[in-house]
Amino acid sequence: MLTGVCTRVAIHISSAADYFRQTIAATGHAYHRWCSVILDSYLNKYPLSAKMIDVEKVLAPLRADVQAQGDIVRRLKSEKANDVEIKRAVAELKAKKKLLEEKELELTKKDHKIDRAKLEDLLKQRFVYDQSFSIYGGVQGLYDYGPTGCAIKANLLAAWRQFFVLEEQLLEVDCSMLTPECVLKASGHLERFTDYMVRDVITGECFRADHLIESALEAIRISKHISEAERSEIDKTLSQLEGYGADALEELIARYSIKSPITKNDLTPPQKFNLMFSTSIGPTGQCQGFLRPETAQGIFVNFQRLLQFNQGRLPFGAAQIGSAFRNEISPRSGVIRVREFTMAEIEYFVDPKDKSHPKFAQYADLKLPLFSACDQMDGKSAQEISLKDAIERGIIANETLGYFMARIFLFLYMVGVKPDRCRFRQHMKNEMAHYARDCWDAECLTTYGWIECVGCADRSCYDLTQHQEATGVRLVAVKPLPEPVTVHDVKCVLNKAKIGRTYRGEAAQILNSFEKLSHDENLKIKESLTKSGKYTLSVNGSQFEITTDMVTIREEDVRVHVEEVVPSVIEPSFGIGRIMYAILEQNFHTRENDEQRTFLSLPPIIAPYKCSVLPLSSHPDFVPFVRNLSKHLTRVGISHRVDESGGSIGRRYARTDQIAIPYGITVDFDTVNRKPPSASLRERDTMKQIRVPIEDLPDLVSDLTNGIVTWSEALAHYPLFEQQETSR
Amino acid sequence: MLTGVCTRVAIHISSAADYFRQTIAATGHAYHRWCSVILDSYLNKYPLSAKMIDVEKVLAPLRADVQAQGDIVRRLKSEKANDVEIKRAVAELKAKKKLLEEKELELTKKDHKIDRAKLEDLLKQRFVYDQSFSIYGGVQGLYDYGPTGCAIKANLLAAWRQFFVLEEQLLEVDCSMLTPECVLKASGHLERFTDYMVRDVITGECFRADHLIESALEAIRISKHISEAERSEIDKTLSQLEGYGADALEELIARYSIKSPITKNDLTPPQKFNLMFSTSIGPTGQCQGFLRPETAQGIFVNFQRLLQFNQGRLPFGAAQIGSAFRNEISPRSGVIRVREFTMAEIEYFVDPKDKSHPKFAQYADLKLPLFSACDQMDGKSAQEISLKDAIERGIIANETLGYFMARIFLFLYMVGVKPDRCRFRQHMKNEMAHYARDCWDAECLTTYGWIECVGCADRSCYDLTQHQEATGVRLVAVKPLPEPVTVHDVKCVLNKAKIGRTYRGEAAQILNSFEKLSHDENLKIKESLTKSGKYTLSVNGSQFEITTDMVTIREEDVRVHVEEVVPSVIEPSFGIGRIMYAILEQNFHTRENDEQRTFLSLPPIIAPYKCSVLPLSSHPDFVPFVRNLSKHLTRVGISHRVDESGGSIGRRYARTDQIAIPYGITVDFDTVNRKPPSASLRERDTMKQIRVPIEDLPDLVSDLTNGIVTWSEALAHYPLFEQQETSR
Repeated sequence: MLTGVCTRVAIHISSAADYFRQTIAATGHAYHRWCSVILDSYLNKYPLSAKMIDVEKVLAPLRADVQAQGDIVRRLKSEKANDVEIKRAVAELKAKKKLLEEKELELTKKDHKIDRAKLEDLLKQRFVYDQSFSIYGGVQGLYDYGPTGCAIKANLLAAWRQFFVLEEQLLEVDCSMLTPECVLKASGHLERFTDYMVRDVITGECFRADHLIESALEAIRISKHISEAERSEIDKTLSQLEGYGADALEELIARYSIKSPITKNDLTPPQKFNLMFSTSIGPTGQCQGFLRPETAQGIFVNFQRLLQFNQGRLPFGAAQIGSAFRNEISPRSGVIRVREFTMAEIEYFVDPKDKSHPKFAQYADLKLPLFSACDQMDGKSAQEISLKDAIERGIIANETLGYFMARIFLFLYMVGVKPDRCRFRQHMKNEMAHYARDCWDAECLTTYGWIECVGCADRSCYDLTQHQEATGVRLVAVKPLPEPVTVHDVKCVLNKAKIGRTYRGEAAQILNSFEKLSHDENLKIKESLTKSGKYTLSVNGSQFEITTDMVTIREEDVRVHVEEVVPSVIEPSFGIGRIMYAILEQNFHTRENDEQRTFLSLPPIIAPYKCSVLPLSSHPDFVPFVRNLSKHLTRVGISHRVDESGGSIGRRYARTDQIAIPYGITVDFDTVNRKPPSASLRERDTMKQIRVPIEDLPDLVSDLTNGIVTWSEALAHYPLFEQQETSR
Repeated sequence: MLTGVCTRVAIHISSAADYFRQTIAATGHAYHRWCSVILDSYLNKYPLSAKMIDVEKVLAPLRADVQAQGDIVRRLKSEKANDVEIKRAVAELKAKKKLLEEKELELTKKDHKIDRAKLEDLLKQRFVYDQSFSIYGGVQGLYDYGPTGCAIKANLLAAWRQFFVLEEQLLEVDCSMLTPECVLKASGHLERFTDYMVRDVITGECFRADHLIESALEAIRISKHISEAERSEIDKTLSQLEGYGADALEELIARYSIKSPITKNDLTPPQKFNLMFSTSIGPTGQCQGFLRPETAQGIFVNFQRLLQFNQGRLPFGAAQIGSAFRNEISPRSGVIRVREFTMAEIEYFVDPKDKSHPKFAQYADLKLPLFSACDQMDGKSAQEISLKDAIERGIIANETLGYFMARIFLFLYMVGVKPDRCRFRQHMKNEMAHYARDCWDAECLTTYGWIECVGCADRSCYDLTQHQEATGVRLVAVKPLPEPVTVHDVKCVLNKAKIGRTYRGEAAQILNSFEKLSHDENLKIKESLTKSGKYTLSVNGSQFEITTDMVTIREEDVRVHVEEVVPSVIEPSFGIGRIMYAILEQNFHTRENDEQRTFLSLPPIIAPYKCSVLPLSSHPDFVPFVRNLSKHLTRVGISHRVDESGGSIGRRYARTDQIAIPYGITVDFDTVNRKPPSASLRERDTMKQIRVPIEDLPDLVSDLTNGIVTWSEALAHYPLFEQQETSR
């Protein structure tokens, strides 16, 4: 393709421009090249997780247990048994699933054994992230990203933007975090975005009720003094805890005499606690606001503008990267559960009657690790199923949902999540919001267990409908009918003078209200007027009697070419901090021969710096080479770190390995003494080094980090480096 | 440089990789190429604002007035005249400066006449940005960025990151927005981040007192019924308003009988109103928190970690891009004064005794439009002065400050600010915070007047000192002394047993407090014990008597090789929304022949999409070409918009011009009928079109948007396009 314009136009332009075009080749958007390399490697070659036969032997009886119980639940449901009986069977099922999951985790964890304390030590030492405001004692659930973490995060978001916004042509928006109460009332957050909280009656310390009860029951469960029946009772309770209300939680606290964990004081009864941070917008104190608990609402309230931007057409997707806030009662698990976090959300608006996706065919044969609701019930583990099969068998609800699951999986893979430690878990019917059609969580396996990193849900038309009802603004798309249809139209023609005389000051709102009536409401008025000569109209809670002299009914057949639909929403929602944490854990290693030397093998696309530049020592002769390399690396857009500190070269390598820098250039006495000057280039994971002319280095590092040249190709091309031949 | 590894290694790698390397040439980080082109063009060629001779004639008497008054102020100060007299002269000076500034604006505005209503219409219509939550009635001072605005903002931030973080090797961090009260108490925000507010006594509506008085006085000032003396009195008041306290404001409201503007009701006395949004962190209600009013504090509280990351060395810079919040009393001026906004801040930590900058020489000869405090006093306008001169003549306080001013100016120029509508205004002594050494605002000229877009201040060691005092954590850097020195060291050796016996439960905090004493404090204790045998120690507000049996003074000479310094901070602070607004205004035009056709001539580096792809009509034959072009543009990383909507091609061009898309590809019947297929390529500002083989287009657009090929080069190379030769 380059043979086209570029070379020819180049004749006309300066040699400087030509020089630049060459030196910057392949940087930056070489992202796309990187993507292709990575995705091809996954699609064609990735060895999908080998079945672990020994593990399966251990798990088989547990799986059978779950399956048997699943069958019982299904039978009871099909026999329409009474509710109490079904509930009991479901509780039993959940308890058995929990046992299976725990065993499974215990066995698989051995393969990916990570010393979390060591990782946390690295993250703190190298300021990847750390607790916020710690010189003031710190605040729980708030974290600051240091230079390393911030660069990883920025790279992750840039990759996301390329992979989703650019490639899917999404409409990205950037909306306010401060949100007035009315919006969050309509979205349901004001009422339902809550956890139950209990307080220590003496100290006032707060605890999340379900977490507190969970730890207490788990402690009781392993005690020797309880009977098998009691233990089984506790298992049942534990598996159901998520759905418990205030009364049920209070009853548990009383039954098991649960106290405040440190003081052993009594606890208050559980109270609902809304997890949104509230504030007051403006000086009057009259505009109650909250910090948004998710970025999605900003997209929904802008639906009309976005639809217009898309020239009124469905389907289209909008996206937003931004912060969201949850005032967790007692945050724990590091950055997994925090009070302020970055999300990246997509709201893809589709015709509710046609959820096919034009690019679905591209991934139809891609196999994803799916842990369906049904398999969860049957005690199976995640299955690798091709998207096509999953849609045909009704496991995944529709093509658009499936398409985005494929994209999510490939994105996670590209940025460093290991496919054999990633799965899609389907929400069980009882976990899903009432309006959701289908919902899958992309979960990553960490030392905290399987953690939800991306949610992907078909939210039907719930959100738009809610905002439409709250504001009276129509949030619909107009779509052409396949064929025009004839519709029988019923309208009220108003005698405005009569209404005005009758209701005076209130007439305006009555007239206004007539304009918004739907076809069905007009029909109702017609019937009522025909039958009784009057109709009672409700406007803002007041009742008005409408009589035949105020309204004439006009009916006609109308030819209609379009229909209005409230779009369905498919929502992939990414928790950026959680994805980062999963990547850090899954790429954390110690050197084989030295347990103390830890390192992070992040893929170059998200590595915080692509390269380090290290003078062998503080000898002044090295300085100009280091400066010059730094300048040229900057010019080709390679973010890098110069480490001129005094430490031994080995120590400095170790330090760069810890912050995941994939390549390191060392300037030594051979660089200074030999012609042409060369330096050594070291790769992080293999620790092998090659000797490369200085002039080649910026482009080589650029090509390596962009996946254009592989390390083994570079190894084959340049001499291996063992040690320098000259000295000062 | 490419002649090195790339071509040679290419032999070993697949032809697919080779293909990719070529197609992705010059995209993405071609940013750097773009920068160079732009900066070279500025440094070598930009015609600096021609002196407007006619304008100067009008302004001359006003300038003379200001200068004469400036001389009076200087004389009074040198004569140490009494305070009242000096204050009166300064007020007179301010009033005269205001007159001059207003006249100057009035005259220069003619050159850059912009119909703001038309621009606002475009911004709304094309959803660049718009008021947040408008389907709910909207919230003042909150804005959502639509796809266009969001992309411009993202491009602006990416350019900032490249220009500052990468090129200056800054340590970028990403800190919490939620901030506990103690941090903002230390920073001074709790006490001083306030405005005065008055309320309508009946409706409770709130107004910012100074703004309200300002509008009221301006209305009185232009009324015919007041005397020249009264008018001059009002002018004086207006120029001083910024510094007025509650009493003075109340007195003005009474004297001029100022009422609530709409209801004409009385107003309450002015009250201080803190502009921070407050919230409660955690469930207990005991941790008072605020949304940060600036991003800087996050860097200061992480100073130690960052210094360690930089291996303990000065100077180094940290940076943060993020949101900040101000609860404005009554926001106005569109996105200029909002409640939630994005900032990009740099805190550059330097040795307080050495504020030179290693890269200063690079810009020593660069001329900047400087509006110094002195010139403001003399009634002059901004002068173009080289950085070297400005430092030598003491106009700019130090090299590091000057270096960053140069970088700020070039950045603004690169992203589309017009150099002749940009200036650096120095803070007058009375505007500057007491701790600041020097402070310059980069101001851009808009229809709102000169607005502050970037601040650049030498904040001395204020911030670190404040946090050090509040926390007791030492926020210092250690620097080697040029030569070791001998220091006389005084220490308290404690009799812990005695202190313990005497003060029991309180002994621990006393011992602890001794450890933190400075050299001077130890000296004081020594003197007091020697003189009176006792010393009164204050710990957390309590007093303890320390006697000679509790403490022995040990003195010795110590050889010291290093010293601790609290670094000074140079702070460039960018208001991203304001910069965006200035760029939008300064690049807003109407077509010469058609006042209704408006467009935005943003530089490609920040244009929201680089290219549009338009089929001439909805004819199905065009579809595969459009799809294929879109795919190839994505592959080379060119963000683009496909517009397949029905409108005429002219209307669709107009639409893409309005969202600043620099290039447009049109697929027509010649594309379909001729071999090889070609399409037309149109440039936004000139509206000229050329005919280009489809195969060449992705690379050509990439080269054009990255500044590798100029439009006139492309015009010279490809045939001009007038109209297609074939039809369906």
